[in-house]
Amino acid sequence: MLELWELGGRRDCRFSTFSWRSRLALHHKRLAFVVHPVAVSDKAAIAFSGQGKVPILRHDDHVVTDSWAIARYLERAFPDAPSLFGGPVGESLTHFFNLWADRELVPAIVPYLMRDVLDCVEEADARHLRGQIEGFFKKSLEELAGERGKALEQFRRRLQPVRKTLEQRRFLGGDAPAYADHILFGVLQWARVVSSATVLEPNDAVAAWFERVLDLYDSEGRKELPRAARMQEAAA
Amino acid sequence: MLELWELGGRRDCRFSTFSWRSRLALHHKRLAFVVHPVAVSDKAAIAFSGQGKVPILRHDDHVVTDSWAIARYLERAFPDAPSLFGGPVGESLTHFFNLWADRELVPAIVPYLMRDVLDCVEEADARHLRGQIEGFFKKSLEELAGERGKALEQFRRRLQPVRKTLEQRRFLGGDAPAYADHILFGVLQWARVVSSATVLEPNDAVAAWFERVLDLYDSEGRKELPRAARMQEAAA
Repeated sequence: MLELWELGGRRDCRFSTFSWRSRLALHHKRLAFVVHPVAVSDKAAIAFSGQGKVPILRHDDHVVTDSWAIARYLERAFPDAPSLFGGPVGESLTHFFNLWADRELVPAIVPYLMRDVLDCVEEADARHLRGQIEGFFKKSLEELAGERGKALEQFRRRLQPVRKTLEQRRFLGGDAPAYADHILFGVLQWARVVSSATVLEPNDAVAAWFERVLDLYDSEGRKELPRAARMQEAAA
Repeated sequence: MLELWELGGRRDCRFSTFSWRSRLALHHKRLAFVVHPVAVSDKAAIAFSGQGKVPILRHDDHVVTDSWAIARYLERAFPDAPSLFGGPVGESLTHFFNLWADRELVPAIVPYLMRDVLDCVEEADARHLRGQIEGFFKKSLEELAGERGKALEQFRRRLQPVRKTLEQRRFLGGDAPAYADHILFGVLQWARVVSSATVLEPNDAVAAWFERVLDLYDSEGRKELPRAARMQEAAA
């Protein structure tokens, strides 16, 4: 039995960049699993894990926290299922890619989309998130909002090595997807779910790749509506 | 028959970050090869390749230019020798790593070491290099030298995802080296050969890794003396 705890917001939207990595990894491994949404500030729901963050994976008696640890766990627990890393060199470089994405990509796009994220969660969670983000950047959300244009430019610029990689192949894993694709997907899926703003230019090789990953695993990523469609549905 | 053309400077020093990648890749594949040094401005010596840059690999009738293309060529031409990439996922992510290093690491360290590089080549080559670098950065060397401290700080900061990766394993390839190690090695070997300045703090996981890579392939990297030792030898 496999269970995944992930962030859930207003109208049950699933926007966590880290949880999306784990979700696609589970599908990649062709595993059946149950998903439990958790509100940002609901620490009681995940107290069983001994810490305060999602995603959390429970596999029978094993509780694994942190998306990178979950990917490593799945690779070892299910060695006969399709590989997430493609061997030891791939695993090591995927770890590098994960660290790079968390350090260079995620913080670059946060100021661009921050306001939109707050709309996606209940009021108490919005206060909680604001505190987290203002603590991380050591700036108020209003100051961060003033840097939106610069943030978008920097995000697109930092994607350049990814863009060049994807100009020559279908996936970061080569002809087929791998966990590195799930990592980058998590970043852009977060943007797609929380905001109607344009993150990538339409002729960007990364945009074409993102559509391919949205199609994977029986279109798992598309089951979560983009922000604009979710709002329309709520208004209808 | 395998031949490699690489940059050679004063007192025959071999300082090209890109050529070091190819040299270690050839050793990794356990191939015998001949090396030809080429002065930075000596375009006639490499006119046979139809372009103006080293490294250049000649394998029988094949001429391959660009260090990434050389690595890919070697992997395909010698499939039974130890792998540089460890499979398709590793190859794709190594390509990403190569693009990232060229875009984020190399330009970050150039302003820190630039003056020292010019001392390593003959006068005509120094003029040539100055032109190349000033064109790339759109700043004079003197302006770049003014940014030395900032450059070093940025270089060390950008290494952070590499550092975290290496805190958990011996090589970027995992337990054993791979071409990603050769790429990073090339950057730091360039610094070691051209300059006596300290690039890494002694307790940095990257510094410990660099010593391990210097030991590889019968200590190939150590055969080229660090700047200070080369100067002493020249004075003796």
